[in-house]
Amino acid sequence: MREPRERAFGALPQPYLLFLGDTTEPGYAKTAFGLRDWARDSCVGEFALAGASVSTGLPRLSPAEARLRGARSMVIGVANSGGLIPDSWIGGLVEALEAGLDLVSGMHMKLSDMPALRSAADRLGRDLIDVRTPPPGIRVGSGAKRGGKRLLTVGTDCALGKKYTALAIARAFKARGVAADFRASGQTGIMIAGGGIPMDAVVSDFIAGAAEMLSPAAAPDHWDVIEGQGSLFHPAYAAVTLGLLHGSQPDLFVVCHEPGRTTMLGHPGYTLPSIETVIEQTVALGRLTNPAIRCVGISLNTATLGSDTAAALIAAESDRLGLPVADPIRGGAAFEQLIDACLA
Amino acid sequence: MREPRERAFGALPQPYLLFLGDTTEPGYAKTAFGLRDWARDSCVGEFALAGASVSTGLPRLSPAEARLRGARSMVIGVANSGGLIPDSWIGGLVEALEAGLDLVSGMHMKLSDMPALRSAADRLGRDLIDVRTPPPGIRVGSGAKRGGKRLLTVGTDCALGKKYTALAIARAFKARGVAADFRASGQTGIMIAGGGIPMDAVVSDFIAGAAEMLSPAAAPDHWDVIEGQGSLFHPAYAAVTLGLLHGSQPDLFVVCHEPGRTTMLGHPGYTLPSIETVIEQTVALGRLTNPAIRCVGISLNTATLGSDTAAALIAAESDRLGLPVADPIRGGAAFEQLIDACLA
Repeated sequence: MREPRERAFGALPQPYLLFLGDTTEPGYAKTAFGLRDWARDSCVGEFALAGASVSTGLPRLSPAEARLRGARSMVIGVANSGGLIPDSWIGGLVEALEAGLDLVSGMHMKLSDMPALRSAADRLGRDLIDVRTPPPGIRVGSGAKRGGKRLLTVGTDCALGKKYTALAIARAFKARGVAADFRASGQTGIMIAGGGIPMDAVVSDFIAGAAEMLSPAAAPDHWDVIEGQGSLFHPAYAAVTLGLLHGSQPDLFVVCHEPGRTTMLGHPGYTLPSIETVIEQTVALGRLTNPAIRCVGISLNTATLGSDTAAALIAAESDRLGLPVADPIRGGAAFEQLIDACLA
Repeated sequence: MREPRERAFGALPQPYLLFLGDTTEPGYAKTAFGLRDWARDSCVGEFALAGASVSTGLPRLSPAEARLRGARSMVIGVANSGGLIPDSWIGGLVEALEAGLDLVSGMHMKLSDMPALRSAADRLGRDLIDVRTPPPGIRVGSGAKRGGKRLLTVGTDCALGKKYTALAIARAFKARGVAADFRASGQTGIMIAGGGIPMDAVVSDFIAGAAEMLSPAAAPDHWDVIEGQGSLFHPAYAAVTLGLLHGSQPDLFVVCHEPGRTTMLGHPGYTLPSIETVIEQTVALGRLTNPAIRCVGISLNTATLGSDTAAALIAAESDRLGLPVADPIRGGAAFEQLIDACLA
């Protein structure tokens, strides 16, 4: 078998064709929707199998048509329960390889573990790219200070908006002409950014080192906006959070929270920490590698609230905490104030 | 190639024959000396190649003689600079496989990556066991409280006595008739205990889960004495330390420190934390999974001090901190008081 080609992290083959399989449940197409919303310029279209009812609204293209429009890879933009790649997808995936596209997947099951895909990729000289596989060459953390500015999103829990908050902040920085990069630390973020490191798949001795590699030395006025992982208060994942915090050496952090959530996801015996507790603990631990670390504001995920309720809550929390508070997906004046505070 | 046989963790094939290679530098034989000192009953003897000048003082046996005395594996008890297995060792390692012994290694280089060993092991039906490889089946941490009592050693830094402190405490518990197990979290400890999990080699998402697996539910009066890793104040390894702390859910912890060390090993820009700071931070983070966590005492590594100086320092630190302080390797009344406090 051909050895996997080594790619620099931050170098997935773009633009993408989005693969939707035969999916009928929109909830399973979050990756495709995330790519459409946050990496629109890197998506030439979508490709679905017979029976699919989900659509991103992008042009429907065959792999050959997508290749003609410049696509370099097809991304599996859907999951199914269990994270498996069903046999019914193989024909469509091989069609993409035959059209000259590499395959990109963030699923648990590795593309390269499927013999039909491996043999087709070998025959055609194409790459099977599993973004949950960390890049080679990760070193142990140095703890050395490096150039550039960094902002990290942290959370009261998992899965409440750390990725989208970081994406929205990086986009807002760029809209103001500030040099900024979104740095992805999980598989969906990596596909959106076109690169990054899946922190939760890194061997634990190297996690701070991986975070150092993820946001390398940069010009003094350049911002890395880093997608956080887990929570310091999560009984399973706090170690990932701490390694990412230490290696990122953030100057600023934004605490992400979902109002109404009271217990840790999947761990109902664990009470959600308060925002103040998260601020205090993040500063206490983060100052090891950056003594100047501070909380610059709060991101509330108010997706389940009406807009009046959300606005009132945002204002009340900002008063209570004495910090800018916003829902980056809603944007508006509150979010602009948060960006002002970051760049002040 | 034969698939590696799955072993329950905690089940290395003992007793051991200790392999010393052609080593002439005692500093390279720390693993062999550690096994002699802490797992004497599990060692039938030593086997050295021509040119070796290092000895553990155990009977010198050929692999065939060791097999006749009950040995089930030969452990590579020496390292060399670079952690490589030199070609000059291959003949002796194959001789052990031919005598019916499995091979056990804690070196960076994997036994199974050496074609000459792999083919001999396949031919003879023997196992090549790399203890730096985590066991299969590690799950994400549950955070659920489990039965039994736990003590964890933590440190102001790496490499200052967390393993030997845990071994000494487990031995002292057993000497008093208390049901106790030493739980090894690094390669040398794993060979001494005959099992364990190499925490630094576990994928980061699973580190708390691995720590839960390392010290499973036990009878209410049973103690697991768990070997700590790294330090919460180490810029590269704090994530490993935190995952082990959360998964271990310790009731008690002992802070290990080397008097005179002022900066973190390998990171001279990082000042060593005070013992009080380590106590405070360990409680702040450890109470997530065990609200009753507390510091029971301090272990000082006084190997470089004279006995009078050491005794005076131990007494002064105990007065200053209001806690039992001892050097477990020196033992004596101070150490017995530390054990009293653990079992009080």
